[in-house]
Amino acid sequence: MTDRAKIMPPAQGEPWLLTPGPLTTSLAVKQAMLRDWGSWDSDFRAMTAELRSRLLSMLGAGGADYDCVPVQGSGTYVVEAMLGSLVPRDGKTLVLANGAYGQRTRRTLDCLGRAHLLLDKGDYLPPRGAEVAAILAGDPDITHVAVVHCETSSGILNPIGEIAEAVEAAGRRLLIDSMSAFGALPVEPAHVRFDALVSSANKCIEGVPGFGFVLARRDVLDGARGNSQSLSLDLHDQWAHMETTGQWRFTPPTHTVAAFLQALRAHEAEGGVAGRGARYARNRDVLVAGMRQLGFETLLDDRWLSPIIVTFFCPDDPAFAFDRFYDLMKAKGFIIYPGKLTVVDSFRIGCIGQMDEGVMTQVIAAAGDALRDMGVTDARPPAAALIERARLAA
Amino acid sequence: MTDRAKIMPPAQGEPWLLTPGPLTTSLAVKQAMLRDWGSWDSDFRAMTAELRSRLLSMLGAGGADYDCVPVQGSGTYVVEAMLGSLVPRDGKTLVLANGAYGQRTRRTLDCLGRAHLLLDKGDYLPPRGAEVAAILAGDPDITHVAVVHCETSSGILNPIGEIAEAVEAAGRRLLIDSMSAFGALPVEPAHVRFDALVSSANKCIEGVPGFGFVLARRDVLDGARGNSQSLSLDLHDQWAHMETTGQWRFTPPTHTVAAFLQALRAHEAEGGVAGRGARYARNRDVLVAGMRQLGFETLLDDRWLSPIIVTFFCPDDPAFAFDRFYDLMKAKGFIIYPGKLTVVDSFRIGCIGQMDEGVMTQVIAAAGDALRDMGVTDARPPAAALIERARLAA
Repeated sequence: MTDRAKIMPPAQGEPWLLTPGPLTTSLAVKQAMLRDWGSWDSDFRAMTAELRSRLLSMLGAGGADYDCVPVQGSGTYVVEAMLGSLVPRDGKTLVLANGAYGQRTRRTLDCLGRAHLLLDKGDYLPPRGAEVAAILAGDPDITHVAVVHCETSSGILNPIGEIAEAVEAAGRRLLIDSMSAFGALPVEPAHVRFDALVSSANKCIEGVPGFGFVLARRDVLDGARGNSQSLSLDLHDQWAHMETTGQWRFTPPTHTVAAFLQALRAHEAEGGVAGRGARYARNRDVLVAGMRQLGFETLLDDRWLSPIIVTFFCPDDPAFAFDRFYDLMKAKGFIIYPGKLTVVDSFRIGCIGQMDEGVMTQVIAAAGDALRDMGVTDARPPAAALIERARLAA
Repeated sequence: MTDRAKIMPPAQGEPWLLTPGPLTTSLAVKQAMLRDWGSWDSDFRAMTAELRSRLLSMLGAGGADYDCVPVQGSGTYVVEAMLGSLVPRDGKTLVLANGAYGQRTRRTLDCLGRAHLLLDKGDYLPPRGAEVAAILAGDPDITHVAVVHCETSSGILNPIGEIAEAVEAAGRRLLIDSMSAFGALPVEPAHVRFDALVSSANKCIEGVPGFGFVLARRDVLDGARGNSQSLSLDLHDQWAHMETTGQWRFTPPTHTVAAFLQALRAHEAEGGVAGRGARYARNRDVLVAGMRQLGFETLLDDRWLSPIIVTFFCPDDPAFAFDRFYDLMKAKGFIIYPGKLTVVDSFRIGCIGQMDEGVMTQVIAAAGDALRDMGVTDARPPAAALIERARLAA
């Protein structure tokens, strides 16, 4: 479904962003920002309505009971709006963490003063349905479970299907941080039961950063009045105001919204979630195969590799230094991403944004050149990295 | 200092936004959004550093003890970040309200569960220094005073100079919502003592919406650790992270930041705060004189009229209907703004954005045509409006 010819290189001197958002967007998306809109005007209200309905349609046939609430700010703001508004003040949340974003969920609940229990799986081990079921069985106070769909710290795709089953079986409610996955990986209420999910404009839908959105059951939004201890991040209030007036409560990022609408139309033209996900999977496959051929090794087994971002171990060769590698890759036109593992050195390369296999092939070539420039003859990781990886496989 | 020739009409079919933000921005500002940046990369960190230092320089010579903290989201988010982070949890805030934005400050404190006292002056009467002094003398629990610089509900320019004097004399701390004024009206610590002020990218500096910023005393930011009950809106954490890493804590609205940098450079080229304020004052003068000539009357005495936005009473003539007037003005290329007064009908016309006297002259002509199209022969307001205004003058 992808029209590969449509992938255009960035303008002269502008690098490709191999980062998990902000990412490389199409020129058409950016050109949609070349005018100003009055946020009160009917033209802009129509844009907001189209945006909400296009996002809702991605939930598939089971999405009829859901509504879409866009929220100004970064993705973290939207996660906080979801937690602070949809979990009652006396609720208790089980947080499933295997990386920075799960930890951030816990920290958000700490700030909000809301009860929670942390299942900390370390840097990358996936939380499994059976262990979630066991925890829920042992703690009847838990009302909600919060999970990160694709934990971009490692790039792992967490098994939200089996987690959703465990949560539903225990009669609790699931909140999904699908920031870096929604739009490329299906999350359909017909298959995965959840109360709400959040994502952001500048991830797999390939808009520019400035706002995110919550897709939540309408009855859950309706029942959330008074839960929030923030005016700005009150999801119920934002939703109720938008339902009544068609407007955002407070000044929306009008240009970002316009860019996102263009991105949503391009997403549909590419074949929706399936088409977008297929292109990203091809990007990942070309990237991983090529990097492995250079001697690099991935943190994760193929089974857990997301089509969003991939973590590679830094080579053991003393000639390798990440900062130098970063600068060399940037000079060749590619911005890569540092790693977030605590035990061994790593770096990450994103597969999302306006890129295709052709671009990923260039990335491999650039990485090979960078190794040669640095005098790295062996890109294999240290033994400690392989021991880490063996833990995951066990 | 203004180079009037530089004001370019919007693209074909795009109306002028006579609204207090989002507003009409220059093409150069919008064109700055035609590329993507990696938010982790040194190029973007340099942009953030330039943005912070340019904003700080607007405080003048007395600004050495201040720092600048940009915050993702709408202006209301940034006000909430200021209140929730800089007022200790056991603090008490005197809120000076004469319109929607003062009321929103009160509502924010309500949500946060922070103690406050409201001085409610109704739709447009200004809070005065002497009454603030009297309230502070009578309530030693009050630690902070929150004031709106230009209350865009009515367009009134509140007397922050005399209020700051009263607050300082009483040994309390002043927080200023200068959302729609900063960049066009001077707020210099050498003359107005304050702990912090907030403003937004899409007001008098003429950027596009997506973030705002706080200018606060460094010792106040340093002492604000742990005050916030929000992770996203924790100003101390945002500041400390930015000081350490040069990065925004969470994904910044990269394109909006790039647009704002261009806007800041244009602001300096226009002669800074003085030059920008002078153009807006001319816009207001042409607007007010022309509208009065058509028979319209302003809510406020000249003394209280800001160069930001002006409230006009709706004509008493039964042939006048605001919705029709709005549509006619829009068809002629001008988006105006509804009123927010509770007692009498009104509408507002903004003076800010990429517009000059030539544009304001066209606005007057369009308003005259619209009156004729509607068959309004007399644009004077009803007697009730004039009685309202007499209250203000008294």
